Amino acid sequence: MLSLSSRLVEKAVEQFATLPGIGRKTALRFTLHLLRQDKTAVDAFIDAFRQLKESIRECKYCHNIADGEACEICLDARRDATIICVVENIQDVISIESTGQFRGVYHVLGGIISPVDGIGPGDLHVDTLLKRVEAIPAREVIFALGTTIEGETTAYYIFKKLPRKEELVVTTLARGIAVGNELEYIDELTLGRSITHRIRFEP
Amino acid sequence: MLSLSSRLVEKAVEQFATLPGIGRKTALRFTLHLLRQDKTAVDAFIDAFRQLKESIRECKYCHNIADGEACEICLDARRDATIICVVENIQDVISIESTGQFRGVYHVLGGIISPVDGIGPGDLHVDTLLKRVEAIPAREVIFALGTTIEGETTAYYIFKKLPRKEELVVTTLARGIAVGNELEYIDELTLGRSITHRIRFEP
Repeated sequence: MLSLSSRLVEKAVEQFATLPGIGRKTALRFTLHLLRQDKTAVDAFIDAFRQLKESIRECKYCHNIADGEACEICLDARRDATIICVVENIQDVISIESTGQFRGVYHVLGGIISPVDGIGPGDLHVDTLLKRVEAIPAREVIFALGTTIEGETTAYYIFKKLPRKEELVVTTLARGIAVGNELEYIDELTLGRSITHRIRFEP
Repeated sequence: MLSLSSRLVEKAVEQFATLPGIGRKTALRFTLHLLRQDKTAVDAFIDAFRQLKESIRECKYCHNIADGEACEICLDARRDATIICVVENIQDVISIESTGQFRGVYHVLGGIISPVDGIGPGDLHVDTLLKRVEAIPAREVIFALGTTIEGETTAYYIFKKLPRKEELVVTTLARGIAVGNELEYIDELTLGRSITHRIRFEP
């Protein structure tokens, strides 16, 4: 048990310990670090979070986080707005952006269909997606959802709602063997799919 | 490389990443966590650090962190003010307090003598310690410093300055085998000392 002889330190430790994966020991390390900083540094630390909470908005097009009305991705003229990648949340946008492999735009659903958690299609940003697909019009909709029952259900639900047009291709993330995986540790379902959907060998 | 499409998120991530041991990935996890919290929670988060920096003081007796003029330990009438434990920094106070084994008071030096880092005796709170020892007067001074050359030098320097009085006992933390250690992994110096200073077996 950490014994702190200051209520101020105690409160700071408590707050740091609300962060995911942070226990009281690490929270104390953070607090002592802050105590060693000068006032300017601590002010900058605090201001970043205040501004984040006060000023962050939702992109009116794709529901991604945005500093203004629209997010930087939707505002970027070099990106192909006719290719829409459908994701569950903003973390997924960041993950895909970090690969540097995608030059289209996103649509953040804000969740996936999950009856257990009481989340139905009406709770997701599906309507705005359908409107965008029609309005642009989109050439491709990519489902970048998890390979869980909820993910598959959500993709299927949206797929049924999408307009049937020859110009619109609907795709999903490739399923297969993760880079660096040994064959013997892969589950049968993944291995089966990766044989069925095998790709051209390009050394 | 994490690609964040928001300057506000980027700034929050940067600030979290200033914390010790926190990289950009964890900093992002913290930031997304904050984004999910309501305003009250984020305000409480921010306020704890603002108050910490604005209101924290140094105990006028022992130089520990304090919410007011003196720290809670020095103010606690149940503690024995005649037993003074000399430590390098406030983290050491917290560590010893967390053991629940000490009912005396502390004296925080604010560092240890380290010529390499340009820290001499004059940079430490030695004078106030000597005054306390005389004024109380102290019955025991415990050196709870690291077993490094710097720690030993600091203890020796202070020891030479302490008044030679029969009523004053000067002690240091026991050296020996850490709880849970296997004999074969212990260095010779520690093992040698722990045989020389062996203690009564109390099963």
